[in-house]
Amino acid sequence: MAELIERGVYRLSSPAYIESYAAAVGSKEGKGPLGGCFDEVIEDSHFGMKTWEKAESRFQLEAVSLAVRKCGLTKEDIDVICAGDLINQCTGSTYGLRELEIPFLGLYGACSTMAEGLLVTSMMIDSGTAKRTAAVTSSHFSTAERQFRFPLSYGGQRTPTSQWTCTAAGAVILTKYAKKCGIVGGCIGKITDMGVNDVNNMGSAMAPAAAETIRRYLAATNTAPDDYDYIITGDLGTVGSKLIVELLQKENIDISKQHKDCGVMIFDSDEQDTHCGGSGCGCSASVLAGYFLPMLERGNISNILFAATGALMSPMTLQQGETIPTISHLVHITSNV
Amino acid sequence: MAELIERGVYRLSSPAYIESYAAAVGSKEGKGPLGGCFDEVIEDSHFGMKTWEKAESRFQLEAVSLAVRKCGLTKEDIDVICAGDLINQCTGSTYGLRELEIPFLGLYGACSTMAEGLLVTSMMIDSGTAKRTAAVTSSHFSTAERQFRFPLSYGGQRTPTSQWTCTAAGAVILTKYAKKCGIVGGCIGKITDMGVNDVNNMGSAMAPAAAETIRRYLAATNTAPDDYDYIITGDLGTVGSKLIVELLQKENIDISKQHKDCGVMIFDSDEQDTHCGGSGCGCSASVLAGYFLPMLERGNISNILFAATGALMSPMTLQQGETIPTISHLVHITSNV
Repeated sequence: MAELIERGVYRLSSPAYIESYAAAVGSKEGKGPLGGCFDEVIEDSHFGMKTWEKAESRFQLEAVSLAVRKCGLTKEDIDVICAGDLINQCTGSTYGLRELEIPFLGLYGACSTMAEGLLVTSMMIDSGTAKRTAAVTSSHFSTAERQFRFPLSYGGQRTPTSQWTCTAAGAVILTKYAKKCGIVGGCIGKITDMGVNDVNNMGSAMAPAAAETIRRYLAATNTAPDDYDYIITGDLGTVGSKLIVELLQKENIDISKQHKDCGVMIFDSDEQDTHCGGSGCGCSASVLAGYFLPMLERGNISNILFAATGALMSPMTLQQGETIPTISHLVHITSNV
Repeated sequence: MAELIERGVYRLSSPAYIESYAAAVGSKEGKGPLGGCFDEVIEDSHFGMKTWEKAESRFQLEAVSLAVRKCGLTKEDIDVICAGDLINQCTGSTYGLRELEIPFLGLYGACSTMAEGLLVTSMMIDSGTAKRTAAVTSSHFSTAERQFRFPLSYGGQRTPTSQWTCTAAGAVILTKYAKKCGIVGGCIGKITDMGVNDVNNMGSAMAPAAAETIRRYLAATNTAPDDYDYIITGDLGTVGSKLIVELLQKENIDISKQHKDCGVMIFDSDEQDTHCGGSGCGCSASVLAGYFLPMLERGNISNILFAATGALMSPMTLQQGETIPTISHLVHITSNV
């Protein structure tokens, strides 16, 4: 049995081992500082499909297929797949993964989806309800723009605090069979709403949720930032990254040395005109699978906290005068297994 | 450890016990054949709120609050809550449950959400990552109409095979501590798409997914329909209910005596002009919590299979020429614990 340390924070009874992972990204992400880390860079934003939504589905399918192939498995070896995305009714996932015929659990955690998927799939490995699982998520600049902001042809001006939704997908396969690294614990996020209602300042909206999740995990496990090589947030961008360090400093927790934000890392904001950095479910998923997991597997680092962050509003709730509820889920991944 | 019988089908190592449940429904559902079963009938479709979306959020919060209160708990006793709904970005759940501050996992399974929530929360109880969980979902006639079909003021004619989205929410609290009945096994659905693209004939689209999930569970557990008091589907309606019995008959499985469909049960279709019956995440959730779980707890019945069904399309995917992917998740609930 896993050890429930406090509400929503637990250690698994044995690690959910990382068997494989893969990231497929778009052209702009491929030209960014991490471009060489990703398994595939797809230059065509339509990925050969007729619509951007179908392209996003194909990115997600591609990430899973790559991850499965990289470890010499077939889709029949995967007992369950957990997936979600930002498109209304999560159709990026449902249409993308339809042909796999793998038992499917749909998630909605906005840009926190990769961490949520790893929480759920690692619990399934630990419980014995699956021997091998996949977690996958995706985002696409053009599907997000037309759904959440403006159709691209509108040519709207972006504000200084805005972020650029990544065209990217990442997949992680977990297994009960021993490998070099694995997930050993997690923290399930609480919905946090500090009253921000500026949809172009998501980093500030989400930073308090990530700060609280990291604080809860460190406190419950009686560990400190120095116990980890990296404490990774999903897509707070430059504004949100500054804020999370400040928020935790007020709690006497200094993560300034360990903190990395996938949204900051994936683009060269000055060169690539991405303002505060990258965002979208695929941002943290692809950076985890493309950059951090290989370092863990190679032994360059041994302990990371991965806290993806999501904004849980919709264009309609903001039109109805609401603020932005946010969430951050965390998994602890280690090579000390 | 749970026993994984085959991909996606498992028996838990010990039951996830049912501690409490509750259903809150709208006026039309309250006037239906099951009206007397629900904990609360809310006559005002706005539930005192300014918009239908905010009303749906309040229905969901009400169902959880009732379930928590009925067993003498407080919200602090719940380790995790799993929720989802049909509104874009699942905002019915995120805004409705925001004030509870319970660790939250967002799900997207369309109208299969209650079964998916019970799968995930029962696995968490079994794994030890939670001592007490809540699963909740909701739907609202008016939020669904304006999002998926037509704004109500349009006054569109409904087709004979259409169903009526229920205004309803249902919540179920599970616990590791022994109670009269519990979840002992489950089957995670596979995405199934038989090529139906008529959004007004969801029953026909979803019946094959439910048939396949029920077939998989019976085969893997080596049980027959006669081993269960009821085999319950979510919201296939009259057309889909006829179809699922026929589909399973072709596999030499006769569920005609045990089969009940929540969508058929919740309305008197002739009297209430609901054509093929009810639908929506809240339909099967409220009928499970209002009708079936009390019967199990009182000892009137002892074994049910609850297979909620969901259609995973969106208005946009249909506009892009796609067909309707569907899913059905199943949990086995028994008083033989």
